[in-house]
Amino acid sequence: MSNQDECCSPLVREPLSAPQAVELARVFKAVGDPVRLRLLSLIASHDGGEACVCDLTGAFELTGPTISHHLKVLRESGLITGERRGTWIYYRVQPETLARLSAVLTPAGAIA
Amino acid sequence: MSNQDECCSPLVREPLSAPQAVELARVFKAVGDPVRLRLLSLIASHDGGEACVCDLTGAFELTGPTISHHLKVLRESGLITGERRGTWIYYRVQPETLARLSAVLTPAGAIA
Repeated sequence: MSNQDECCSPLVREPLSAPQAVELARVFKAVGDPVRLRLLSLIASHDGGEACVCDLTGAFELTGPTISHHLKVLRESGLITGERRGTWIYYRVQPETLARLSAVLTPAGAIA
Repeated sequence: MSNQDECCSPLVREPLSAPQAVELARVFKAVGDPVRLRLLSLIASHDGGEACVCDLTGAFELTGPTISHHLKVLRESGLITGERRGTWIYYRVQPETLARLSAVLTPAGAIA
């Protein structure tokens, strides 16, 4: 969505269009999983705001490939970016995507 | 969750605990569907902040039972409440739940 206002208007202000809802639902579905929510939170709160798989696997009783699958879903939905440096890919949260989801969910009483 | 601060701390500030992530993921999953996102938005932006199924079905090419199923998911996840008055149940958005999701997703740059 190119229009910044349209993209981030709270859903309580006016009905979402069907295409907006399809696009937003995809991103909400990506955070609708406990492992992915924790991964997002671990990456965002890690030193320097970035983390590699090596920093993340210890927090879960899950295999590397399972963690990688969840990171891929987060990446494809625009919630994180990954940058290869040497052996590892370093992940960072995309603050614009978080800001957009947060804005869409702003309740009526909190709209400026 | 009884502790208000703990419930709404942005996920970029500190890692979510596993139980927090399970609870939050359930609510995000509820909004991770285009029909439910549009229902939420239609209810919230309807006159007086409430709507009955009779106000909602016209916006979708879906049967009444399908709409009712999605309303049930929204209700069970605490995103809307329903109150029967006469023939119809009137739905309202729960602003506390929206506020909580919005707060959890607040990006680092926007934390007060």
